[in-house]
Amino acid sequence: MAGTNSTKPHAATVSEGGGPAIILVDPQLGENIGTSARAMLNCGLTDLRLVRPREEWPNPKAAAAASGAGVVLERARVYHTTAEAVADLRHVFAATGRGRDMNKRIVTPRRCGEDLRRFGNAGDTCGVLFGPERSGLVNDDLALADTVVTASLNPAFRSLNLAQAVLLVCYEWFQAGRAEPEERLVKGGAKPATKREILHFFEHLERELDASGFLRISGKRPIMVRNLRNMFQRAGLMDHEVRTLRGVITSLVGGRERGRKAGD
Amino acid sequence: MAGTNSTKPHAATVSEGGGPAIILVDPQLGENIGTSARAMLNCGLTDLRLVRPREEWPNPKAAAAASGAGVVLERARVYHTTAEAVADLRHVFAATGRGRDMNKRIVTPRRCGEDLRRFGNAGDTCGVLFGPERSGLVNDDLALADTVVTASLNPAFRSLNLAQAVLLVCYEWFQAGRAEPEERLVKGGAKPATKREILHFFEHLERELDASGFLRISGKRPIMVRNLRNMFQRAGLMDHEVRTLRGVITSLVGGRERGRKAGD
Repeated sequence: MAGTNSTKPHAATVSEGGGPAIILVDPQLGENIGTSARAMLNCGLTDLRLVRPREEWPNPKAAAAASGAGVVLERARVYHTTAEAVADLRHVFAATGRGRDMNKRIVTPRRCGEDLRRFGNAGDTCGVLFGPERSGLVNDDLALADTVVTASLNPAFRSLNLAQAVLLVCYEWFQAGRAEPEERLVKGGAKPATKREILHFFEHLERELDASGFLRISGKRPIMVRNLRNMFQRAGLMDHEVRTLRGVITSLVGGRERGRKAGD
Repeated sequence: MAGTNSTKPHAATVSEGGGPAIILVDPQLGENIGTSARAMLNCGLTDLRLVRPREEWPNPKAAAAASGAGVVLERARVYHTTAEAVADLRHVFAATGRGRDMNKRIVTPRRCGEDLRRFGNAGDTCGVLFGPERSGLVNDDLALADTVVTASLNPAFRSLNLAQAVLLVCYEWFQAGRAEPEERLVKGGAKPATKREILHFFEHLERELDASGFLRISGKRPIMVRNLRNMFQRAGLMDHEVRTLRGVITSLVGGRERGRKAGD
């Protein structure tokens, strides 16, 4: 996940139709704007809006921290008020870690991601508000939102870095539209071994273990054979791996036989 | 989510029993170690292991970036090899963005989080390997892992910041053990209005709209009343909110009546 710079920055795609806007209210540090932009583009989002950034804009520290997501910064729009920044949106979420004394729906980032997908698929513009690093969103900004999004985190240390909070929401939005399964197996072009190949391997191993004396206690032989077979069965062997293992047996036996000859 | 510094750093809890170790292999920047430590503690994890950090250790930039998660840095252990760092672990995941030509199980961070929870609940020690910022894990490190974890991200811009990658895995681990629902409603101590209160409000509104002439076209009255009632019904009004709305009606009517008198 980290450290893969194989793709060129200029290959970055624009936001898919329907992706939410990310709105940073009173962001204090240019660097956090840059890392937020990178997190957005990691998830295919490009609509960044800034309300009263404290530092100059455009900002060189933001550009350095964006690490290839400069396209998001170049397109970012700056607003004087949160109300202006959300004016064209139909559904607004507010990210905050604090439970507020407000009658407001509160969702996890996961539910937020699902909601944003559904709204986007219906053609409705959406956005998510994030407050300044130290203090978070004020209640007047929360009142502009339909829904609060709060991540379930360590109750003794809830304070997320701004870009980390942005990442969680963008990540959950991306996951809600993901087609790939939770799990797969990369085989590197190889095929799982046929059961015949595996059976021949078992027979090869057991023949040599009979010869070496490993399976000499006849009463225990069936259970030992079964244990060995189960062990290798679990490995989900590929055809070339079975060939490797047979080579290993042959090699080990050769060593023993050489040793036996040497010891004669 | 961001910007909540209400909890004191010293209130940080230690890793729950069974939480995974986070192993940074060849991390280049102290700052990324610090932000990774913060992400870990956000999710209640404290077992940080460093293999050959490039910069001096302990590292002042790491301490500054940890923002209150210094406890994780203080406990961090430094190793010369990845093999030493994982020696006591029973299940090892390797985080990488690149599909490799290896016969290896690949999971999403979500499945990884579920697996880590399950292993931890069974008392098995676990860990997740993260490679250096620029290049990621080398194949020899991958060979020490049972499973690869790769986040589904924008294929044109997959490169996650190191601490962001750490956050996604830690976050999914935390979520896999979360008891809270995806959605709730904060009511600030208020109770949803009774249907009697709401009905009285409807009747109040409709009486005044009859008086003002808004509902004067008798053929359309039933559908307009139904639309208005549905609109307010959807708002899920609290008892005090119904009282506020009744005050609004009274106030508006008073204004009109005052206006009418003034216009006499």
